Amino acid sequence: MKAEMIAIGNEIVFGHTINTNASLVAQQLEKIGIEMCYQSGVRDRYEDIANVLEIALKRVDLVILSGGLGPTKDDLTKEAVFEYFDEELIFNETAMQDIKNYFEHVQKTMTENNMKQALFPANCIILKNICGTASGCLYQTSDKKFVALLPGPPKELRPMLQILIDEHLKQKVEGVYLTEDIKLFGIGESEVVGIIDEFLGVFENIEIAPYVAEGCTTIRIKSFGINKEEAHTRLIPYKKSLEKCLAPYIIGNNDKQIEQLVYENLEKLGATIAVAESCTGGLLAGRLINNSGISRWLKESFVTYSNEAKSKYLGVSIESLKNYGAVSEEVAEEMARGVANATNSDIGVATTGIAGPDGGTEEKPVGLVYISVAIYDKCYTYKRLFTGERQEIRQHTVQTALYYLYKQLKRLENE
Amino acid sequence: MKAEMIAIGNEIVFGHTINTNASLVAQQLEKIGIEMCYQSGVRDRYEDIANVLEIALKRVDLVILSGGLGPTKDDLTKEAVFEYFDEELIFNETAMQDIKNYFEHVQKTMTENNMKQALFPANCIILKNICGTASGCLYQTSDKKFVALLPGPPKELRPMLQILIDEHLKQKVEGVYLTEDIKLFGIGESEVVGIIDEFLGVFENIEIAPYVAEGCTTIRIKSFGINKEEAHTRLIPYKKSLEKCLAPYIIGNNDKQIEQLVYENLEKLGATIAVAESCTGGLLAGRLINNSGISRWLKESFVTYSNEAKSKYLGVSIESLKNYGAVSEEVAEEMARGVANATNSDIGVATTGIAGPDGGTEEKPVGLVYISVAIYDKCYTYKRLFTGERQEIRQHTVQTALYYLYKQLKRLENE
Repeated sequence: MKAEMIAIGNEIVFGHTINTNASLVAQQLEKIGIEMCYQSGVRDRYEDIANVLEIALKRVDLVILSGGLGPTKDDLTKEAVFEYFDEELIFNETAMQDIKNYFEHVQKTMTENNMKQALFPANCIILKNICGTASGCLYQTSDKKFVALLPGPPKELRPMLQILIDEHLKQKVEGVYLTEDIKLFGIGESEVVGIIDEFLGVFENIEIAPYVAEGCTTIRIKSFGINKEEAHTRLIPYKKSLEKCLAPYIIGNNDKQIEQLVYENLEKLGATIAVAESCTGGLLAGRLINNSGISRWLKESFVTYSNEAKSKYLGVSIESLKNYGAVSEEVAEEMARGVANATNSDIGVATTGIAGPDGGTEEKPVGLVYISVAIYDKCYTYKRLFTGERQEIRQHTVQTALYYLYKQLKRLENE
Repeated sequence: MKAEMIAIGNEIVFGHTINTNASLVAQQLEKIGIEMCYQSGVRDRYEDIANVLEIALKRVDLVILSGGLGPTKDDLTKEAVFEYFDEELIFNETAMQDIKNYFEHVQKTMTENNMKQALFPANCIILKNICGTASGCLYQTSDKKFVALLPGPPKELRPMLQILIDEHLKQKVEGVYLTEDIKLFGIGESEVVGIIDEFLGVFENIEIAPYVAEGCTTIRIKSFGINKEEAHTRLIPYKKSLEKCLAPYIIGNNDKQIEQLVYENLEKLGATIAVAESCTGGLLAGRLINNSGISRWLKESFVTYSNEAKSKYLGVSIESLKNYGAVSEEVAEEMARGVANATNSDIGVATTGIAGPDGGTEEKPVGLVYISVAIYDKCYTYKRLFTGERQEIRQHTVQTALYYLYKQLKRLENE
């Protein structure tokens, strides 16, 4: 089954909002074997919506539209779509009840405008919105294509998409698709392609594709079978052969974020951690705290942006700061060891670098970063030179620090 | 002039990469009066690229394509686009020199593959890539439409887009467009629409549109004139009338990020600041440190995730933690005052909340957050209840804390 995603809304097309729904929908559909082939975005206009819908229906089997289901006059996705299909919008009791329940739950009063949100064509399936008032729907066209309308806000779209997939789309896909990821660190996409070249197109009903995201290269393996067992049987030996070729670079084999892998390894080791950040200024701790259970392992962390703070809280020596500068291997190591000491943690991670745009010199250019991981009695310090703007350099530093930290945790676990 | 943005690449359409270029391009074009009307995304396939290009050329005057200009076999945007236009790709000396210069600059060796990146049709303008090897180009079709090819990586696209706009597109737009934003906090979009209703469609050559981004409502005013002066003269009284109606909610009137506004006010006041974060765990400090000059005002900050850390570094009383809990007005205030004290700063900002998914109770549900701003001798504590997933709640808390902080800084400035 081939799909297209259409995002509707001036805020998307004019660029005020980044369209994150397209990515989410594509990834979730891929898991059940529906291939996203096109993305579109249009303004809140009747003729534009009808125009892109018509194009989409010519080239795919499933069209997913997001946005424009709100209670205001600007929200006209439902009106435009069903005018196109020549379907009358009538009052839907299920949708109305869902809206009423939602208002009751959040203890707010329903307005007259919300009534509009209960209008749907007679022959469609209502999709419940558990985080808002905009119900969605799934509609089948006269030539057996599917059109789903979902709300725009990601927190409303996400749970509704899951309902759509689990309760309605899954059973329309013939056979079962399994996907597995192999995440790699320390190797570029083109090198990966070189190594896995012999795997491409060799097996039937199995596909691999490398892609780069968040600073690491991932190989996604997709296996097809008439049932789960067949897809699984096909996937496993293939995956194992790939893993054998790529062993030194593998950092994980699922779609978990790197901070989640770090967290799981901290749990396994029962190791406590603290972070001392200069150029990343809190972002690394912020990523670790994405894990809701991290409080057992991370109790406190420091943003030591000034030299004084580096000495005061982490015990970085004034000599090192003077002789080598705040952005140096020596200071990074003292920071990492220092934060572990100061907080009585098993692991200390430190970042120090020149994020720019100012502050670079010929010797220490913008983008120069040191990352240090002090882990029990050992300490590993890495020097990197990143490019890009200030925010890109800082984000890249955080991501890379998480990878190095994870590598060291895995090494410990295997020892 | 009407425009369409086409993102090319499997990684975009399959959802592995979020398409941030579309937003960037739309916003930059809007500033010179080019209206983005459609967004598209397609896989790296000849026929798909030709297909969307054909559709785009029927409905807009300017098509901007991004991605697929790399040196590998998968990169076939240039090939597909110019096959469609029946233009031969020939070796371009300017492009070649740019590529050579780039390799010299980064001290790497050019590969044979990169030669492909110097192939362009004879009659196009080469757009220089200052951050990579993929030159772009601007091409005029036989019926006077424009097609621009830009690289996919945002850090390469951004500077090239600026060149494209400044050196080539600006002069093709008749007249001058000026845009100004009025950023509002503490008022919803629908309320804003109610207040500004009388302004809609009253003046000629002036447009306003409210939109919501990053937790605040912004009104974008767009004014057109035959020259800058005319557009300006038109815009100013209009903007002033709007500001009069919305005065209590205005937090800024340009496209600066809120952390930049905070930073500018810290500079004006000469005030130092420190942050103590529980649920946001470093993200708030991370946002402040987006400002490259912040080191004069922010020297250090704490992630006090545990109760012990809150007492140890901030002096939060054990009684308060026991009697009111870590997520309480009292503890938030003690944290804010405490971090200002501990770091000898003029301002202390603290966050404490239940980001979930676990840890909520009936009395203190997931999403409950306290934000406290201690500023000289005063302290303001705010209670908020956010919805969404853990990361959304944390990001929302950071954004809201920045707004409250800014409000207090502005109040001080006006006193």
